[in-house]
Parts: sequence; C-alpha cells; structure tokens
Amino acid sequence: MADFQPIRVVTDMAIEARDIVRGEAHEEVPGVRVEKDGDQQIEITRVEIFNSQGAHLMGKPEGHYITLDVPGFKDRDAGVRAALVDVLSDQLKTLIPEDLAKSVLVVGLGNWNATPDALGPRVVERLLVTRHLSELVPEDVRERMRPVAAVAPGVLGTTGIETLDMIKGIVAQAHPDLVIAVDALAARSLDRLLGSVQIADTGIHPGSGVGNKRQGLSHESVGVPVTAIGVCTVVQAMSIAQEATHMLVQQLADDAKFYKILQEMGEPSQNALMEEVLGDRLGGLMVTPKEIDLLINDMADVLAEALNRALQPRLDRSEWA
Amino acid sequence: MADFQPIRVVTDMAIEARDIVRGEAHEEVPGVRVEKDGDQQIEITRVEIFNSQGAHLMGKPEGHYITLDVPGFKDRDAGVRAALVDVLSDQLKTLIPEDLAKSVLVVGLGNWNATPDALGPRVVERLLVTRHLSELVPEDVRERMRPVAAVAPGVLGTTGIETLDMIKGIVAQAHPDLVIAVDALAARSLDRLLGSVQIADTGIHPGSGVGNKRQGLSHESVGVPVTAIGVCTVVQAMSIAQEATHMLVQQLADDAKFYKILQEMGEPSQNALMEEVLGDRLGGLMVTPKEIDLLINDMADVLAEALNRALQPRLDRSEWA
Amino acid sequence: MADFQPIRVVTDMAIEARDIVRGEAHEEVPGVRVEKDGDQQIEITRVEIFNSQGAHLMGKPEGHYITLDVPGFKDRDAGVRAALVDVLSDQLKTLIPEDLAKSVLVVGLGNWNATPDALGPRVVERLLVTRHLSELVPEDVRERMRPVAAVAPGVLGTTGIETLDMIKGIVAQAHPDLVIAVDALAARSLDRLLGSVQIADTGIHPGSGVGNKRQGLSHESVGVPVTAIGVCTVVQAMSIAQEATHMLVQQLADDAKFYKILQEMGEPSQNALMEEVLGDRLGGLMVTPKEIDLLINDMADVLAEALNRALQPRLDRSEWA
Amino acid sequence: MADFQPIRVVTDMAIEARDIVRGEAHEEVPGVRVEKDGDQQIEITRVEIFNSQGAHLMGKPEGHYITLDVPGFKDRDAGVRAALVDVLSDQLKTLIPEDLAKSVLVVGLGNWNATPDALGPRVVERLLVTRHLSELVPEDVRERMRPVAAVAPGVLGTTGIETLDMIKGIVAQAHPDLVIAVDALAARSLDRLLGSVQIADTGIHPGSGVGNKRQGLSHESVGVPVTAIGVCTVVQAMSIAQEATHMLVQQLADDAKFYKILQEMGEPSQNALMEEVLGDRLGGLMVTPKEIDLLINDMADVLAEALNRALQPRLDRSEWA
Repeated sequence: MADFQPIRVVTDMAIEARDIVRGEAHEEVPGVRVEKDGDQQIEITRVEIFNSQGAHLMGKPEGHYITLDVPGFKDRDAGVRAALVDVLSDQLKTLIPEDLAKSVLVVGLGNWNATPDALGPRVVERLLVTRHLSELVPEDVRERMRPVAAVAPGVLGTTGIETLDMIKGIVAQAHPDLVIAVDALAARSLDRLLGSVQIADTGIHPGSGVGNKRQGLSHESVGVPVTAIGVCTVVQAMSIAQEATHMLVQQLADDAKFYKILQEMGEPSQNALMEEVLGDRLGGLMVTPKEIDLLINDMADVLAEALNRALQPRLDRSEWA
Repeated sequence: MADFQPIRVVTDMAIEARDIVRGEAHEEVPGVRVEKDGDQQIEITRVEIFNSQGAHLMGKPEGHYITLDVPGFKDRDAGVRAALVDVLSDQLKTLIPEDLAKSVLVVGLGNWNATPDALGPRVVERLLVTRHLSELVPEDVRERMRPVAAVAPGVLGTTGIETLDMIKGIVAQAHPDLVIAVDALAARSLDRLLGSVQIADTGIHPGSGVGNKRQGLSHESVGVPVTAIGVCTVVQAMSIAQEATHMLVQQLADDAKFYKILQEMGEPSQNALMEEVLGDRLGGLMVTPKEIDLLINDMADVLAEALNRALQPRLDRSEWA
Repeated sequence: MADFQPIRVVTDMAIEARDIVRGEAHEEVPGVRVEKDGDQQIEITRVEIFNSQGAHLMGKPEGHYITLDVPGFKDRDAGVRAALVDVLSDQLKTLIPEDLAKSVLVVGLGNWNATPDALGPRVVERLLVTRHLSELVPEDVRERMRPVAAVAPGVLGTTGIETLDMIKGIVAQAHPDLVIAVDALAARSLDRLLGSVQIADTGIHPGSGVGNKRQGLSHESVGVPVTAIGVCTVVQAMSIAQEATHMLVQQLADDAKFYKILQEMGEPSQNALMEEVLGDRLGGLMVTPKEIDLLINDMADVLAEALNRALQPRLDRSEWA
Repeated sequence: MADFQPIRVVTDMAIEARDIVRGEAHEEVPGVRVEKDGDQQIEITRVEIFNSQGAHLMGKPEGHYITLDVPGFKDRDAGVRAALVDVLSDQLKTLIPEDLAKSVLVVGLGNWNATPDALGPRVVERLLVTRHLSELVPEDVRERMRPVAAVAPGVLGTTGIETLDMIKGIVAQAHPDLVIAVDALAARSLDRLLGSVQIADTGIHPGSGVGNKRQGLSHESVGVPVTAIGVCTVVQAMSIAQEATHMLVQQLADDAKFYKILQEMGEPSQNALMEEVLGDRLGGLMVTPKEIDLLINDMADVLAEALNRALQPRLDRSEWA
C-alpha cells in the first residue's frame, strides 16, 4: 500500500495537490474522493476532501472543489467561451441559494494594476449589481431580482489594510447571505495556465497565490458561507524549471543509464535540490502567456456572464448585458 | 440691512454658497466669517461658519472651509503645480495631528470609470501607503513614518453598497485616528472648473456632487474626525445656461430698457424659471474642459504629493516618489 | 420664397446644417434632397447635397449623408444596441464593394487620452483585422475573408504630425481600395449627444469636431474613396447657452411683451450676441453625459460589430467575436 | 586559439550574444571590440561589431551597441531612476545631431495591449512633441526647440500592416532627419529583465523580440539613420528551463560522476535537446517579474525623461514636465 506524504509543493488547485500527493500510487489519497465528468472541450473534476487526514495530506481544508479544465481557452474561440459560461453557471447554481431574497456579495480579490492579478477586479466591473435597485425598479422586476453587491477591495500592498479585514468590515455593514470570492490562482502545471477554473465551497486559503493574502477568507472568518472561484493565471518560474528537468530526466532515462540515479532520487528530492540551487534567481518571477491581457479580459467576460446567469436565473440576458 | 435668504442653489463650495447668499449686500452673511490671503497665482479664502444661523443660510454644517483658487491650473504649467503642492501641504499640515503615531485613512471617493469623478481613486493610487510596513522597514524609518492606509470604495451604482456603509465597515476594522476624504465637487462657476481646491474639517455632505453620495461622511457618522479635500471637476450644464442668461441680461441691460423687467426679476426667479423650462433637457449633463483626462491626472499628482508631504513630514521625498 | 443664407454655425452633422439653413422655410434648401425612413427606435434621414449651391449653403461638400438617430441609446439597452448594429451594418454594406478581394483600411481618428474623442481608436481596437492573415488561414476561410487593416494614427497634438499626412503615408504603403474613417463629431443639439450616427461618402471635413483635424480626409486628398462614420460625442458648451436662451425667449414670449424685441432679433443675431458676450468663457468647454465613458464603449462595440459584419459578410460571427 | 561558432541562440542584446559566442575563450570574438565603464549602480558596456566576420558570428549587423546594466532598477528606487536618466541622456546626446534644426521622429514599437510589449507606446505618450508647435510658440522658445514627432504605429497583429511599412509611409510624409525607435527586447539572462537598456546605432533587427517585427528598421530600409533604444522586458520561458538545467548540471557535477556525460555534451547540445523535448510546451510563454506593470511605467518615465533631455538640451525641464 502506498505511503502517502503530506504535500510540500505550493499549488492553489486541489486537483494538482491530489495528483502530486498521489504520485504513481494506484489507490486514491486517503480522505479524498475524486469524480470525473464533462467532455474533451471541458473536463470536470470533483475533488472532495472529506476528513482531516485528507485535509492534512492535501494541505487544504475539507470541502468540495470542482475543477473545469478547458485546454482550448487560450485559442480565444467564442464557442469555447460560450460552452464554459454554460458549464460554469450550472455548477455555480448548485452553490447559490435558490431563494432570490438571499443576497450575495461578490468580492474581486487582487490588484487592478498587475495584469495577471487583475481578474477579480475585472469580473466585479462586469457584474450586474442590484442591491441598491430594489426601490428603483418596477415591482415585476424586483421580485425576479436577487440583491447582488460587488466590491474589489484591493490588496494589502496598495491599501495598507489586510484584505480579510476589509471584507469583514464590508460584510458587517452589507450583511450578505453568501460571499463569492473571485481570485487569480497559481498553478504548477503549464496546462492549467488560463485554462482552468476551480470552484470551492471552502473559501480562499492562502498558498502560492499571486498576491499575498495571508489569512483565509472563509465562513469561519467572515461569518457567512464563502464560495471561491479561482482561475490559474500564473505559473511560478520555478515550476517551469522543475518541470523542464523532470521531463528531461524522463526523456533521457530511456537512452542513458547515468540518469537512473537522478531518476531514483524522485521528484521531491529533485525539487528540493532545485529550490536550493535556483530559489534566489527565480523567486518573484512568473510565467504568463504572451496574450495575458487579452486572455484575462476573455476570462473576466466568461466569469461575469456565468455569475450573472447563476445569480439572476429569472432575469433575461438583455436585462443585464 | 440685508435680508439674507437660505441658499437654494446647489454648490459643493462654501465660498460660492457665501457669494450667492450674500449677493450684493455689503454686510457679511450672519454666522459666517471670511478671510482672504494668498497671491495672484493662488488665492486663499477661509470661510468659517460659526453658528447655526450661518449653517442654515449657507446650507452647510458649521466648520472651517479653505478654498485655494488657482486660475492658472488649466494651463498645465509645472510651476503652478509645484506652488499648489506647497500651499496645499502647508494647509493640510494644520489639520493633521503632528504625532506620527496617529494613523490616517485616506478615502478616494468617486468612480474609476467616469473621468470627472475619478479624482479620488487616482489620488489613492498615487499615495504612499505605509500602514502595513511597520514590521518590514528598519527601526530608523519606522519611527519617522506615520501609518497611512488608503481605499477607493467605489460608488453605490457599481458596488450596490452605500459608500458611507463601506467606509464605516473599513474604519471599524482599521480604526484610523483621522479620515481624509478626497472627492470631485460640482461648482457653479466655470472659473472653478479644475481650478479650485476646497479643504474642510466638516467631512463631506452630499449636495450637487458628481455622484450621488446620499449620506454625509463626517465625525458623527464614522466616529473619527473627517477632513475633506474636494476639487471642482464639473459644472452642471444647467449652470452654464443660467450663467449665460445672466450675463446676457446684464450686457443688454445697458442698451435696452426691455430687459429691465427681466433684470428686476432677480437671479433666483430667473433660475427657477430656467429650471422649469430646461430641467429635463439639461439634467444629467455636465460641462468639462476638453483636456479633462490630463487635468484630472495633473490634479491627482498634486493632491497625492501634497498629502504625502503633509502626512509624512519626516520622510524624504525620495522615500516615496 | 425663402431667402436661404449660407450656414454660419458650426456643426459636423449634415442633418443639423440643413435644419439650420432651412429654418422655418417651407421649401427644401436648394441643391439638397432629404428622405426620411426608419422607425421610432432608429430614425434614418438621408441628406443628399447634389450641386454646388447646396454645398455652399450647407457648408459641406456634395455627397450623401445618412443619419441614424437613436434617442434611446443613452438608456444603455442591449436591444437598442442590437437594432443599431443591424441597421448600421445594412447601411454600410451599400457603401463597401461587394468584391471580397477589395481591401479596406479603417482609420480610427481621435485621441486615446480624451474620452469623448477616443471613439475612433476604441473601434479600431475591436475590429477583426485580417490583412496579414491570408497566408495563415485555411484556403476555405481565405476566400471568404476580405483583407482589412486598421490604424489609430493619433492626433496632431500628441504626434506632431498632421493626421492627414499620417494617413496618406500609410495608404501609400498599404494601398487599400477604400478607407473608412471613424470619428467623434460635435453636434449642436443635445438630442444627438451619444444618440446619432452619421455615415457619409464624402470623407471627413474639419469643422467643429472635437479635435482639430485641419485638412479634409477625402478621395481627393488620399487617392482612394473615403467613407466616414461619425458619432456625436460632445456638444459645445456654447450650444447649451444658446439653446437655453432660445428656449427661454420662446417660453417667455407667450407671457411678456418685452421679449418681443429679443425674439424679433432672430436666432442668428442672438447667437452672434452670445458669441460676443460668452465666447471667452465657454470656448474649450464641452458638454457630455455623466456616463460618457460607458457610452463611448457601448458605441465602440456597436460600430465595431456593424463594421465587422459589413466588411466580412461571409464570415460567421463566431469567427471574429 | 578558440574556434568561434556563429551564435545559434536568439537574443536581442549584443552583450549577451558576445558572451555566448565567446563562451569561456580568453580571446575576444573576432571582429568585435568591447569596453567597460560605469560603476556598480550602472555598468556601461560598449560592444562594437566592426567587420563582417564579427557580424556573422554575432548574428547582428556591424555598428555600436551600448548596454546600461542597472541591477537595482527592479527595487523601484527613485535615486536609481534619476541616475539612469543622467547616464542615458548623456549617451543619447552622442547619437543625436547637435543642430536643433534637425528633426527627430520617435517611434514607439510594440503593443499597447500587452504589458511587457507596451514600453514603446508608453514612452511615446510621455514625450514632449514639438514638431507642430513652431508657429505657436514665442520666437525665443522656437529657436531653442528641436522639432520632435512621435508615433506608436501598433503591431502587425492589430493593424494588419507591417510595422516597417507604416514607418516608411510616415517617414515619407514627415521626413525627419533621424528616427529613434524604442522597443521591448527579449533577453536570455534573468539578470537583464527590467534591468538593462541597450542603445544601438544600427536600427532594429528582428530576433527573439517580444512581438514579431519581421523586417529590420534601419537606415537602409527607411532612408534616414535609425537609433534604437531597447529594454529587456521578457525572458522566454525556454531560457529559464535551459538556465535551470545548466545550473543544476554545474552544481551536481562536483558531487556526482553521472553528470559528467551530460556536462561533456556542452551547452549547445543540451539546449538543442531541451528545445526538442520542451519546445511545444514552453513556446509562447514568457517570464516576467510580478510587478511588471509598475516597472514598465517606471522605465517609460526614465526613457521619456532621458529622451526629452537629450532631444531638447536648451529647454528647461519645467518647459516639458
């Protein structure tokens, strides 16, 4: 039986954490359940961490994590975006109270002034905000309209205030029934760069995220349930170096016996070695696609549209677009 | 003796309110004290409303209002901007506690996405934010550095949350000793468009401001003193129409007796008439200079520089620029 | 019979010029033909100036001017925008060669950094540009795809080069079969502010436009036909003052005889008087709706979509969106 | 004696090309002269390629290349920026005709909408443009003012027109005496990321640059001398992978004999191998610092200030800032 070790690598994606912890074992990670669904265009993976052992091994709190992998997103195809809006709004609907009287606060985490970290604020900017309208719209619209508020609280570096504190303060005044936090994530795999959306009912817990969010944003910390939507917008430069070496080792292993020893070293020791050798040089650097600005806008369009649809199931699209 | 009537016209500037209420009377408005200072480049006017009668007539709370009129600002001259930074930072220093341990929260009111209303957010973006740094900087810097936080909370129309509620929530978490609110104002006179800065120790009270701020932002409402810095960035289109007519009437009066009656009608009645005739057409329109985008940036540079200097008197400019 | 006087007022819109020249005459302006079409949502007016007398009176070159008046555009309704895309692309198709081998250069006139003047550059940014793709796309796409290039040449104030010279230089290198110029216009009537699109086969001829374009952009000056698409994004502050006074005079005329004389003065003399009295104060100011930034983006979306559709009739929308 | 091989690696920086071609040889690359100057804050390296053998080995045309390495630039220190402005404007002055009647066209290459490629356009935006002013300024200013024009022609992907063609067309109309092209470069070494400025009198020759510029922009192609200013804003992800492996190999070589063979393979063969293994995965990705948006703005400020000073030696700073 496999001897699972707690994850030491930093990734915001539960699906990656699971693949790393599991490695080449045949069994599932203890305390974790995984289900696959979807099609070639959009692959859906549900990871559930259902006990404390799973949480310990995965380095993430217990809860449900849904990953939508959309390898074709980077090709900027309108059809792929439309399909992602469909799937995403369906998934979100399962996490949002059906009762339209329940109000929602959407929080766009991240920094306006750093493109890969600007996803959250750009989604907020595109949302249909309704919380203040109830007295202004006709009766028939009002009863089909959920109160939605939206804020982009900025980041510690530009406000001087912990993001969590800002959100606590705003929640205390606006008292929503649910917080939905949108954030840019860091992934380990290049395949997920601008090609993967994670929805979690656990809130947001700082890890390798682009900015430094320090404290978790969760039901426990803000007092209402927190659903998190994250999109991988950067891969740390170190991941590239590590991935490069592993692929190289694997490739060479077939041909040359001198690599056996390096290979036998195993990935964790290889990574530790690289961390030591390259840490100073690669820390703070990140890898992005050349078209990052356009892709972030595409993704903000998709997320805002899916959120509007999931939050306002009884409004017609022409009422918000 | 003059029979002063409470102001009926909407203006955010105390100096304009005073000129309107006073009209052509020789006495000062009761409950109001006015002092002039400065030079041709920057004219300084201090208006003090010192009792409830003054507050009633002026339509503004008791307190001190300092106006800096800088007619040459629109010419985009670097020398004028430098002079304004000097005067403004000196004036601000008188309103900020000398004790560097007293923390300040700067609030940039207004809407990022509407140029004339974006002044507040743009000032915030340029500020030296230090509240989170105290553990990161060397001892010798720390003791010369005031904790400053800065937020741009957005506007009701884009967040769904009353701005005052947002600020209350943030103040409750960050507990600053002073709030400085930066806002775009509406003036009545074209001369003040991007050429006038008002500093008030009374906070911000909704009036003809660009956005709709509804509730006042004041010591009373947020629990700490609120200093307001406002710059006139728009004049309502209606003001143009009114000013046009008044100037016309005045001009024609010399030549033609048929205007006497219109002239005798007096400005208030003329304005009421115009409000009735033109209200529907001109409401929601505003007048701005062509170079508004550049001028707003110039002014944001000046305000941020003056604030940095006033807030951090013991830091060298090279430590924040 | 009416005694038509050449226009002295500055307007970029042929339809306004015609209304001003015609005044209250019952006959049409000599050398001008007008046809109305469309419905309440989008009113279509075709003005043809067909001889030199018409050109002289109207202050515009001979040619065809189509105006689409969309009073509801400012309400930001998705249905209205979609309807405008339909009508606009149909009108544009009549002015673009059917032969897909004929190439088009779209020129976005105006200044990125001044919101009301940024329409042209923002349309260019949203266009499907294909001129460089012919060797990269599959055969079946290539033969359905017109070569389209797009540039935003900036304005004299930021480049130091006359816009017309820039375009001449680019046309000489790219040799398109047609130039389509997109520009922000100044109108006289508030009703047309962000609510009126003019298409002309005469190119662009400087007038009261937002920026200073000096020389005309026309078949004659660049060597290929020039179709112009203009949207009214500002009204000069002076127009407001004039309109205000005229409305006032009209309103008062019913009640008071003293206005008779002013009324008898007629609009032209009233305007001249106001120009004299107010010219210094109002010059350089413009009137815009509060939501100008959003409305400019809405309009850029509409224009780009209509252009893409008219330029690429055989490409599917999913191939460019 | 060393057996120099023509460079096969793509880099826009002459100094890197020289280091790669030279490798560990003791002699200088034939046809190349190198001089070092400057201090720890700003290291100046002059590379001269003085014959065709040098050009062949270096993969770059004959001419002068000055590199300013500023390792501290990324720390965002105002003092370092001021020092760089000093050094850079002095270096530029040696390449700009002293005669103020000689006009200059500054071309900002790159794409507004892709942050690391937006350096050129952002410099252009900050420049003092004077070519159109000569008739507007007083006599005494005019004779101290060089005619300067500035354009940001966009990139092939957004205009459909080869950038070189655009520039040829504009030069033909504006006939400047000198073109200065500002561009974002790709470097191989992470040390040069946002920390290195290259000035060359050879124009710009496509290589691994961020965008695809295809044809060279040079005296030969546009008919007037072309000075190029380039700043390294990206390192290709592949460079990271290669650098990572080389450092690893070097590190391990001391300990383990199995690496000897890999080491003996030499860098070129290692790189070719990695290109084969990783090319598909890493192509199109780039590595940037997290604060890229801020650093690009800092650098645009520095370049514009240095250019203004070098272009307008007789204007006072207050006349342009």
